[in-house]
Amino acid sequence: MIYFDNSATTAIHPEVLRTYTDVATKIMGNPSSLHNLGSTATRLLEASRRQIAELLHVRSEEIFFTSGGTEGDNWVLKGVAFEKEKFGKHIIISAVEHPAVKNTAAWLATQGFEVEVAPVDEKGFVKVPELESLIREDTILVSVMAVNNEVGAIQPIKEIAKLLEDEPTISFHIDAVQAIGKIAVEDFMLERVDFATFSAHKFHGPRGVGFLYVKSGKRLIPLLHGGGQENKKRSTTENLAGIAATAKALRLTLENFEQKTEKVRQMKSVIFEELSKQEKIVLFSENEHFAPNILTFGIRGVRGEVVVHAFEKHEIYISTTSACSSKKNAAAGTLMAMHVKPDLATSAVRISLDHTNNMLEVEAFLTIFRNIYQEMLKVAG
Amino acid sequence: MIYFDNSATTAIHPEVLRTYTDVATKIMGNPSSLHNLGSTATRLLEASRRQIAELLHVRSEEIFFTSGGTEGDNWVLKGVAFEKEKFGKHIIISAVEHPAVKNTAAWLATQGFEVEVAPVDEKGFVKVPELESLIREDTILVSVMAVNNEVGAIQPIKEIAKLLEDEPTISFHIDAVQAIGKIAVEDFMLERVDFATFSAHKFHGPRGVGFLYVKSGKRLIPLLHGGGQENKKRSTTENLAGIAATAKALRLTLENFEQKTEKVRQMKSVIFEELSKQEKIVLFSENEHFAPNILTFGIRGVRGEVVVHAFEKHEIYISTTSACSSKKNAAAGTLMAMHVKPDLATSAVRISLDHTNNMLEVEAFLTIFRNIYQEMLKVAG
Ligand SMILES: Cc1ncc(COP(=O)(O)O)c(C=O)c1O
Ligand SMILES: Cc1ncc(COP(=O)(O)O)c(C=O)c1O
Repeated sequence: MIYFDNSATTAIHPEVLRTYTDVATKIMGNPSSLHNLGSTATRLLEASRRQIAELLHVRSEEIFFTSGGTEGDNWVLKGVAFEKEKFGKHIIISAVEHPAVKNTAAWLATQGFEVEVAPVDEKGFVKVPELESLIREDTILVSVMAVNNEVGAIQPIKEIAKLLEDEPTISFHIDAVQAIGKIAVEDFMLERVDFATFSAHKFHGPRGVGFLYVKSGKRLIPLLHGGGQENKKRSTTENLAGIAATAKALRLTLENFEQKTEKVRQMKSVIFEELSKQEKIVLFSENEHFAPNILTFGIRGVRGEVVVHAFEKHEIYISTTSACSSKKNAAAGTLMAMHVKPDLATSAVRISLDHTNNMLEVEAFLTIFRNIYQEMLKVAG
Repeated sequence: MIYFDNSATTAIHPEVLRTYTDVATKIMGNPSSLHNLGSTATRLLEASRRQIAELLHVRSEEIFFTSGGTEGDNWVLKGVAFEKEKFGKHIIISAVEHPAVKNTAAWLATQGFEVEVAPVDEKGFVKVPELESLIREDTILVSVMAVNNEVGAIQPIKEIAKLLEDEPTISFHIDAVQAIGKIAVEDFMLERVDFATFSAHKFHGPRGVGFLYVKSGKRLIPLLHGGGQENKKRSTTENLAGIAATAKALRLTLENFEQKTEKVRQMKSVIFEELSKQEKIVLFSENEHFAPNILTFGIRGVRGEVVVHAFEKHEIYISTTSACSSKKNAAAGTLMAMHVKPDLATSAVRISLDHTNNMLEVEAFLTIFRNIYQEMLKVAG
């Protein structure tokens, strides 16, 4: 089996799973409990938080655990909206956000908030001047993802941060789910970023765990009200095993980060080079300014779905852009926002690599690719 | 160590943990993926859902996975409120709800909803006639827990269900977090119940996983918008290992349910009998109409905290009522609602038993109890 669908989800790292089972077996207290089983649990919880904070070069008190990327995105959008509604109800998101941002914004629009969408260029990058022109007196939030999940475009977070330097009342949220472990932390954890969303299962951590960076002093209404855990900001009995496992996963991911991304970059460029030679191939990702792990392309005239199933017969797993859109038989939202023609957009498939892949797999993939491509050409005519 | 704090959290069952690690290791697909790794994941997801539904005598499509009890409660309250706000904005909760309900309702009150609280009697049972008198034309939701977490009172869910039979437009939510595995499923999963909240870590399942029962046809706005998982009602990449483990935990919990609860009931009654003999002991739980596992009491004039720490020295773990309120040094909300005097309320400690406890532990507990009691009497004078 060759698994090139790492942007959908990754395999949990064996050491991470071991941390999970160790903690689940040995530490049974509820961190809220008064007795020493509770304090042992609290110490591990805070050690995990501290480790994550250090890896992101932020402070412990700025990290809040969640159930994943979707909760993080929902929390920031709804939390900032309801926190700041007295000051304004205008929200700006980009045209290529994940549904966790896009659909949350759409719901807020039913609640009297006004959502405007900053367009992207034909490669999928947010047009910063157009985003700037949307900013108003009553704008309370700008939400732009750091790395796009469907084509891998690295968004101009630095430029947007610079722009927002003169707008201190606007909260700036980045969805960093596809950025962490793929591009350098310094490239998106900028001083001007107020909120950043992360999800553990995208970096060999457990499913159902994530964390949110909330800059000190930035307020947001809780999404989960209750017993007052997470400094009264996010209630529920803490998933201690999952949280400790997530801290471990992040540490492992950022270990030898440069070597790992260089390896991934090389694998991508070998595939990229081969694909660019083919007349009927259209490439939606590039090497520069795109995440090193994502390569989205299409065979003209062939639906992405057909290509995914053709590879699947050889136990090679890729996807039709995001896992979310794949079952809906819909073209990727990102490609639509890039104004790719619908029939071309529905041809798109996404390869998403990982440092656990290797060059032998890339070669095997390319061999199969050549066969499939020839076959498809006959069919597509 | 003697762990009598099972209402705070339970130890994960070794077989449940094995299911978690098996699934995490062997099934790596994202259920949303188009390829066969995705469909394998989907099959396991749906099998888990089916198993839970069968155990609760409901339909698969009525079960939605969540991150725990707090999310379930937040989802129902906010989801019903925003779904039905056109029809009315009046919500009734009981005076002894968990903070996940109480604080969510309090937030809704800041958003233009009107929340009224049905009082309880001096034993902690909701007064049904008073709840009835709160019902109005614009009431959209009644939320009452099935079993109270601080004293164990089994709420009159049947009477409330009967009352609501004539009020088909009012949604009826029960927080069943402390009920499942403690009282018979038939006693709270009634036909008239529209929504019921569950949390896995209270029945030897993993932390950070729960599920919500949503009766067919009952609508609620999602709390987590996004990629459209869980039949478009609750988005995020499914925590498959946690979900399969939860299904396993529920099956194990309900296996030999009667023997297990009988065992727990006997342990409780032995402790109850001993405590009732002591002059300075006040009992907040009884045997009849209370959960078989919870026994809350106080030593007059001694703060609960002091009692918890005294037992802790002997590696016996109990708590000051709920884990949530314990660190806040506040009297239990349930006792306040029962109009227990503050100084008596702050004396309360909760023993919460489990079928994994045994009579030897009960005897050891009672031996230590007698010593502590004598000591405390001297201090309290
Ligand atoms: C950019 C982005 N944001 C958010 C999410 C949602 O994360 P999760 O599946 O942890 O809810 C994903 C992945 O599905 C993603 O790729
Ligand atoms: C009655 C009740 N409801 C809700 C909850 C919250 O559950 P969780 O910790 O899974 O969020 C608890 C336990 O803390 C509880 O006892």
